Amino acid sequence: MKNINPFIESFKNTNKQLVGNGFRNIQVLRDALNDFNGSEESDLYGAGNFIEDFQEKMAEFLGKESSVFFPSGTMAQQIALRIWCDQKGINKVAYHPLSHLEIHEEDGLKKLHNIQPILLADKSRVIELEDVLAMDEEISCLLLELPQREIGGQLPSYETLESISSYCREKGIKLHLDGARLMEILPYYKKTASELCSLFDSVYMSFYKGIGGVAGAILAGDRDFIGESKVWKRRHGGDLISLYPYIISANYYFDQRANKMGQYYEDAVELAKFFNSCQAINTVPTIPVSNMFHVHFNAPIEQVKIILQSIHEETKIGITGNLRPVNEEVCYCEISIGDLYSTISKEDLHSIFNKLNEEMKSL
Amino acid sequence: MKNINPFIESFKNTNKQLVGNGFRNIQVLRDALNDFNGSEESDLYGAGNFIEDFQEKMAEFLGKESSVFFPSGTMAQQIALRIWCDQKGINKVAYHPLSHLEIHEEDGLKKLHNIQPILLADKSRVIELEDVLAMDEEISCLLLELPQREIGGQLPSYETLESISSYCREKGIKLHLDGARLMEILPYYKKTASELCSLFDSVYMSFYKGIGGVAGAILAGDRDFIGESKVWKRRHGGDLISLYPYIISANYYFDQRANKMGQYYEDAVELAKFFNSCQAINTVPTIPVSNMFHVHFNAPIEQVKIILQSIHEETKIGITGNLRPVNEEVCYCEISIGDLYSTISKEDLHSIFNKLNEEMKSL
Repeated sequence: MKNINPFIESFKNTNKQLVGNGFRNIQVLRDALNDFNGSEESDLYGAGNFIEDFQEKMAEFLGKESSVFFPSGTMAQQIALRIWCDQKGINKVAYHPLSHLEIHEEDGLKKLHNIQPILLADKSRVIELEDVLAMDEEISCLLLELPQREIGGQLPSYETLESISSYCREKGIKLHLDGARLMEILPYYKKTASELCSLFDSVYMSFYKGIGGVAGAILAGDRDFIGESKVWKRRHGGDLISLYPYIISANYYFDQRANKMGQYYEDAVELAKFFNSCQAINTVPTIPVSNMFHVHFNAPIEQVKIILQSIHEETKIGITGNLRPVNEEVCYCEISIGDLYSTISKEDLHSIFNKLNEEMKSL
Repeated sequence: MKNINPFIESFKNTNKQLVGNGFRNIQVLRDALNDFNGSEESDLYGAGNFIEDFQEKMAEFLGKESSVFFPSGTMAQQIALRIWCDQKGINKVAYHPLSHLEIHEEDGLKKLHNIQPILLADKSRVIELEDVLAMDEEISCLLLELPQREIGGQLPSYETLESISSYCREKGIKLHLDGARLMEILPYYKKTASELCSLFDSVYMSFYKGIGGVAGAILAGDRDFIGESKVWKRRHGGDLISLYPYIISANYYFDQRANKMGQYYEDAVELAKFFNSCQAINTVPTIPVSNMFHVHFNAPIEQVKIILQSIHEETKIGITGNLRPVNEEVCYCEISIGDLYSTISKEDLHSIFNKLNEEMKSL
């Protein structure tokens, strides 16, 4: 065993959790494999029924000509941007300053693809049409992350998306959707995946956020774009001999959870109210627009850890195992609703949040 | 179902096969998972017991300070070469003209890393000390693929390896081992993995060739090199939230097969003799130096397919499902010995090769 963190352990030792679909353990994979006969053949370097069928299914679902399964979204998105840059001959793209590409990928886009990002909007809000109009540099592609995860999962209005899409088409700028949490925003927009994706030239979606698979991503777009992305997938080392462990689980949990996103969204709205009713706690956004939001605790992280740990130990219901500092006086956690929230009784919810409120008051 | 190829189907429908460890089906993964309790936690972006324990085990096995698990060898090797190039400030490496990097990776090394390869030796033989001495360009790294897969798995002598290693150290050239089939050559060299790897600065090995896992690779070297390679792994999109399906199977089949490589090698030597006893058939190399070799049929591919298909259908024993043209008059297949060879009786072997010989004679 590696280092033990008593706060994280207190979360892991709870019997129920407010968030997520359950722990990321190997049963998640095993359950997905159970539907199959052991003699089912592996995919083979991008060919074979497992991968081809799933790619066709997702292309249709997203309303695109074609799609390709990637081991990671990091790989899928860098490749999408590279293709659009090469096509236009301009190595510049635009995205939010808190884009996954900017803060979680060790500058892969710059170091591998020599692509320069223009950062739009600021760290506290989403990209609006005005930010796009105000850009004075020529770019090949604009990437929109919906919802903007690092600010609690905020969204622009659908009208803004339509305006940005029209503007980009007019100006010859490709519009790419970072839809890591694409399924999770459809209930708020009241749109199908295919309607939303019609605004974009290329779309990435993930299978281990709201969907709860093991790993993996789909990149979708027109046939030529996807053809090129398969070549880049091989260059990146992502064209594995076997991707079926990810594909099978992606497909299995997609079928299980695609229709539950409306429930998760409603649950998130409800849970955010509970947090906002507590002293010195507020959620971002105040009213969630997807299954996710951030909870800001106006207290030092070490104090909040002690409070949450005591609630975990007393109630055996987990709130979070991942608390991060904003500064010395404020910390936050990310909440993503999944299957588990609905297993918690209203009585338990009131009891947890009464305790949390009392503890925060006593600080 | 996709396109049906009757020759491939005839191989798949056999009851036993001369080659490999069995079909690549999902039972391979399921068997590896069976040892575990479903509540075992996933690795998480490169951390966690599954991945850390396996990396430590493989570093020790290979005699290196540290190691990191990659989803693919393509990714691992490009990254190794990039690190050595950046360190020396020279974007040139040397390898064989039939290196995986040159012919199977869509020029990822050039297109992603801007590294220029110098091709040593020619397509019919392995790299010798003289090739290295004759290089007139300065390079950061020399990559040796042992065995050289595309020419049937040939090997230089161990003395040659020692001389090349000494020369490279003297000249400040890093030596990298493409050990996709590293385990498979140890019996011929009569060396431990750690002895062989001591000649190299960095080493890649694969877990789905002789080992027979699902996918994945280990890159090993000194601590700083591996630290840097983890950063590049994230840049490439290879730092998946969960790599455990590959790690668990890599570990499981490594434990099962690491000690069988001597047997596979002996079996390959025996099987090559059977092929060489047939009219118009020869193996490359004539006497294998690992568990693999190529079989050249001096006849047009369509004729050989018909012959092999009839033997598959008659004997229910599979020889190969993958025949490739050399030119209009010659074709070849690759043979890799695994667990299955020893399940075939000598009587069956004689019977198959009598038939094959008769059929080839009759052409």
